[in-house]
Amino acid sequence: MPTEAATASGRQTRPAKVRVRADDLRTLVSGIFAARGVRQADAGPVADALVWANLRGIDSHGVSRVPRYLELFDKGESVPDAQPTVARPRAAIAIVDAHTAPGPLAMNRAVAEAISGARECGIGWASVRGTVHTGAIGYYTSQVADAGMAAVGVVAGLPTMAYAGARGAAVATSPLSVAVPAGRHETVLLDMATAVMALGRIAQLKATGTELPPGVAVTKEGDPTTDPALAAVPVPVGGPKGAGMSLVFEMLASGLAANPIVPGYHSGASQGRRHRQNAFILAVDVSAFLDLGEFTSTVDDTIEAIKALPAADGVAEVLVPGERGHRSELERLAAGIPLGPKAWRELTGIASSLGVAVPAPANV
Amino acid sequence: MPTEAATASGRQTRPAKVRVRADDLRTLVSGIFAARGVRQADAGPVADALVWANLRGIDSHGVSRVPRYLELFDKGESVPDAQPTVARPRAAIAIVDAHTAPGPLAMNRAVAEAISGARECGIGWASVRGTVHTGAIGYYTSQVADAGMAAVGVVAGLPTMAYAGARGAAVATSPLSVAVPAGRHETVLLDMATAVMALGRIAQLKATGTELPPGVAVTKEGDPTTDPALAAVPVPVGGPKGAGMSLVFEMLASGLAANPIVPGYHSGASQGRRHRQNAFILAVDVSAFLDLGEFTSTVDDTIEAIKALPAADGVAEVLVPGERGHRSELERLAAGIPLGPKAWRELTGIASSLGVAVPAPANV
Repeated sequence: MPTEAATASGRQTRPAKVRVRADDLRTLVSGIFAARGVRQADAGPVADALVWANLRGIDSHGVSRVPRYLELFDKGESVPDAQPTVARPRAAIAIVDAHTAPGPLAMNRAVAEAISGARECGIGWASVRGTVHTGAIGYYTSQVADAGMAAVGVVAGLPTMAYAGARGAAVATSPLSVAVPAGRHETVLLDMATAVMALGRIAQLKATGTELPPGVAVTKEGDPTTDPALAAVPVPVGGPKGAGMSLVFEMLASGLAANPIVPGYHSGASQGRRHRQNAFILAVDVSAFLDLGEFTSTVDDTIEAIKALPAADGVAEVLVPGERGHRSELERLAAGIPLGPKAWRELTGIASSLGVAVPAPANV
Repeated sequence: MPTEAATASGRQTRPAKVRVRADDLRTLVSGIFAARGVRQADAGPVADALVWANLRGIDSHGVSRVPRYLELFDKGESVPDAQPTVARPRAAIAIVDAHTAPGPLAMNRAVAEAISGARECGIGWASVRGTVHTGAIGYYTSQVADAGMAAVGVVAGLPTMAYAGARGAAVATSPLSVAVPAGRHETVLLDMATAVMALGRIAQLKATGTELPPGVAVTKEGDPTTDPALAAVPVPVGGPKGAGMSLVFEMLASGLAANPIVPGYHSGASQGRRHRQNAFILAVDVSAFLDLGEFTSTVDDTIEAIKALPAADGVAEVLVPGERGHRSELERLAAGIPLGPKAWRELTGIASSLGVAVPAPANV
């Protein structure tokens, strides 16, 4: 178990993190989900989506969300063994109804449907209606890239972010992800919130009482603040640009899924604030446009042109989207996924109470 | 003709602007293009794209670009009577080869192809290869919305913008436009550069010697500046977010069109810096997902929920994307399009030299 570490000088440092092998963590989380009613065949894929986020360094979307998933089960806002259903009204589009199944189940289905539409028609679109927490959207777009296709993914959820010119939480931090397959290089993977700083990251700074950078959040009253105790609402990137992206993403993701979130949220009705999300995945079959090898070679050349640019002062290396995440993945696959003592205690506590075996950390 | 205006106190004010009726301006510009070799049937549509930008208040993309179009003709970088050709490798996708025809010709064709793919398959995508200056991308996405569909549009061009962590111009300010049809309200029309401030707007401030807001541009050496004389390179919105969007837009718009721009630009080859653009338009046929009236009613409700939010201090009204542009359009349709004396002199000079009739301004 983790112990408080102290330096030779006696100065207290942060509590040591546990390192858990990715496979072990997947087995643990999958076991928890299965014990809580997720079908055996589905528990692994749900766990995989969360562990992937940890591997990529997006810890706010990783296994620390397990207690939240169980809370959604307890409240009836997510049904652990629900099965998404699919309609395909025209050749290139599918509508996946999640029926409040754990998010990754509907999203994985959307990936498969978007790819299948793209194989037939050149592009494929899958709308996802009424899912719960999807995890990191890059997990899904990168699967499309693994199939040799480019992908765009968007998720819309409950308003938590400010809207340019308005006070309070107005729109969601709706993320945009674009994945582009490369050849010699790793997939280019953009995965960005429409907020200056993602909500999960702000929550981490608040939890540790760390001062926020300026321009990241406002108070409940809408005043700019760097005080973690007062920060309540993240602000959109580029003011009207991020706010506008979030608004049109809601219209596309929720509107086309016939499951609007923003109007109900602001209507004051209690049902309007119930947790729910909508999403879409667009797959573009590169090979319908040109030879896949020619395309990925262009992507490689583009990556290399950017990485060869002179670096700005104080910058060690120019990076392309997804590069940092890929390095995190390699490091964490080798050394295990670092988890804070609280997150580890919580996970192992849940596992023990459900009779699920707890793996030994990799660094103990 | 415009005259220098002076207040009663004798203080010099800015030169008065000419107001030209939209129809007159369209006829004038269309006449210029026809006289310079654009086919009679094509000259009107090219003029319309430019005049639309002026109507919407995006003057940097309006008729002030006419001299630049003629310069592209002179250099052979655009062929005035070239005709775009179309391939449709699969049911939902088209590739429009612009053959360096004036931008709006290929882009209008892409709009038609994307809509036709969407009618058949639910969504339609048209890539545009090797176009020149497209004008404002919102002109094209809003046409898709007029057909009762949602649209996404992206243009990729020569690098002019900084990339997070690198020095110098690295990537284009590649705009993103999303258009969503509404019912009681006007089309929601997002049209944003991936730069904090669009290049055209920075050029306007430089031309008038106006200090730039902080965080908008850097010098040639990559240092932040607000000095209009030193500002050389616009910075991406949200640092790595805007830079990442621009990079993946280049990969999607140029890569799928088999006409990469970024690698050639940085290769040092002179051909790599030749003016050219690529683009794509995605159309989503709303009626394939749900009843169009139900969708537009949801969009209306969403607009109204946002506009009903309490406004921030000093903000008179919360606006949705496209609302400001629509108001500009109404005002300018009624009062004429304001043109600076220099732009008007330039246009009328070109017209006279080509024997094209010059309309009388509306306000003289």
